[in-house]
Amino acid sequence: MTARALVPWPDLSVPAELGAVVWDGRGAPPDGLAEVEFYVLPYDAGAEPLKLFPRLPSLRAVQTLSAGYDHLLPLLPDGVRLASGRGLHDLSVAEHTLALLLASQRLFPRWFTQQRIGAWDRVHTPSLADSRVLLLGYGSIGRAIERYLLAGEAEVIPVAGTARPGVHGIAELPELLPAADIVVLVLPDTPQTRGLLGAAELAALPDSALVVNVGRGTAVDTAALTAEVAAGRLRAALDVTDPEPLPPDHPLWTLDGAIITPHIAGGSDSFYPRAKRLTERQLSRFASGVELENLVR
Amino acid sequence: MTARALVPWPDLSVPAELGAVVWDGRGAPPDGLAEVEFYVLPYDAGAEPLKLFPRLPSLRAVQTLSAGYDHLLPLLPDGVRLASGRGLHDLSVAEHTLALLLASQRLFPRWFTQQRIGAWDRVHTPSLADSRVLLLGYGSIGRAIERYLLAGEAEVIPVAGTARPGVHGIAELPELLPAADIVVLVLPDTPQTRGLLGAAELAALPDSALVVNVGRGTAVDTAALTAEVAAGRLRAALDVTDPEPLPPDHPLWTLDGAIITPHIAGGSDSFYPRAKRLTERQLSRFASGVELENLVR
Repeated sequence: MTARALVPWPDLSVPAELGAVVWDGRGAPPDGLAEVEFYVLPYDAGAEPLKLFPRLPSLRAVQTLSAGYDHLLPLLPDGVRLASGRGLHDLSVAEHTLALLLASQRLFPRWFTQQRIGAWDRVHTPSLADSRVLLLGYGSIGRAIERYLLAGEAEVIPVAGTARPGVHGIAELPELLPAADIVVLVLPDTPQTRGLLGAAELAALPDSALVVNVGRGTAVDTAALTAEVAAGRLRAALDVTDPEPLPPDHPLWTLDGAIITPHIAGGSDSFYPRAKRLTERQLSRFASGVELENLVR
Repeated sequence: MTARALVPWPDLSVPAELGAVVWDGRGAPPDGLAEVEFYVLPYDAGAEPLKLFPRLPSLRAVQTLSAGYDHLLPLLPDGVRLASGRGLHDLSVAEHTLALLLASQRLFPRWFTQQRIGAWDRVHTPSLADSRVLLLGYGSIGRAIERYLLAGEAEVIPVAGTARPGVHGIAELPELLPAADIVVLVLPDTPQTRGLLGAAELAALPDSALVVNVGRGTAVDTAALTAEVAAGRLRAALDVTDPEPLPPDHPLWTLDGAIITPHIAGGSDSFYPRAKRLTERQLSRFASGVELENLVR
């Protein structure tokens, strides 16, 4: 009897010592559950995968492909290890951040409007290069965004909750905002981040500054930002809003200086190759008795 | 009597040995032309700046801020050196290339359409990460594009006129096209590049491949590309077309899978800081008798 891994994709490289059982979370679970020691939870497959734990008597480790895992802790049997999907969505979010930022700097709303009427009218545009970018949030997504910004020869000023060498603290915002061309927010929703960019902070930004939010909408005062964009003083490129969804009749939708996408930064094809590579690394580690990556318990 | 430099901007750092005379190409030229030894041609200022050569008896070197310089050669007095603006537009073009590519991968036409009606409808999108990008043209702009693509964890396959270590030759295109997710063209208009992507080459690309052109429109067969995009088989993101401007009634304008901008990749704010830095370096070299950068004669 071999140890088995329950995995969501058939096209994985699985160590010879482990037998793979494939289940994508849809339909009836496969045979051979009694021998499953390593369970890779199907992604975005609802509640069914979580109901399998009581049927896995040999289970020793679980891999989730989400960054969050709090909901799993009460369900896992004692002694079963858990590894998270931390980092799998980073590049997707970073990529969309650049898409929002560049579409705004290079005037894409203008080009799309011209395209609808077949107009070839050229204007000079702002650019990212040489811009000073305040990067609020400097975890793994922030660093992925920074790599893109540096390739584009922007100046990056990283800001985190507390200052550390090379990284400014959030307390320094009042001095940093007046010199920023672009502010990128990639912050979670916490009591500390809620309302971080309010009317006073937005007023401290120079004319024509761009606010890009890909973290959580609550970090920005939506009414204050709407007023600044409506006045033509600031520009905004948002994947997240507060409230969310943004109501259909909200004035922000139709403002010239605003680009809005419906919270889709993390949901792109870049996820699957990364999820598969992490899964393969973890299966290999598990098979050879090496500690898992992203271990959270 | 000090040697003088005639420069287009007042806010330059000029070596103490050189006296600066400022003229942006508009209005009457300033006094002191007889002592001008180094002339930085105003950019995009029409023909007036070129008429000044006969009035500069001390002239020893000219700096143009354009990449092209053929039109200057017949006008320059014998013995006057000429340096080009090669590279000053590279990053602007690279940045717009990424903007086109990311806007296409991340479905920005869909978001702009939804934005006009206030619709918050989410869909999963393609991404750049892990995509295989054929980069046709591997000069300084191509390498600037490559730095961006590598920051986004794409796989870059550089292709130049002739193969060299690490770079494929154009003759290998038939084998390279079927495996490309994205083709980026940054090629000049030459007899060799004209019609490079014709109906057969486009047909060799896999379904859903994206063609990004920021070089010259003539490298792609517009009718063949339009047919592929109209059929929903390929996608296109074009800053250049053939003919150019694209006629208002051309079918490409309104196709779902096409993004079109009116040849504006090189015209952004990233030019001026670079032009000023090059000018300052050249003034410093000139003042200390060091050979100029970008010397073309």
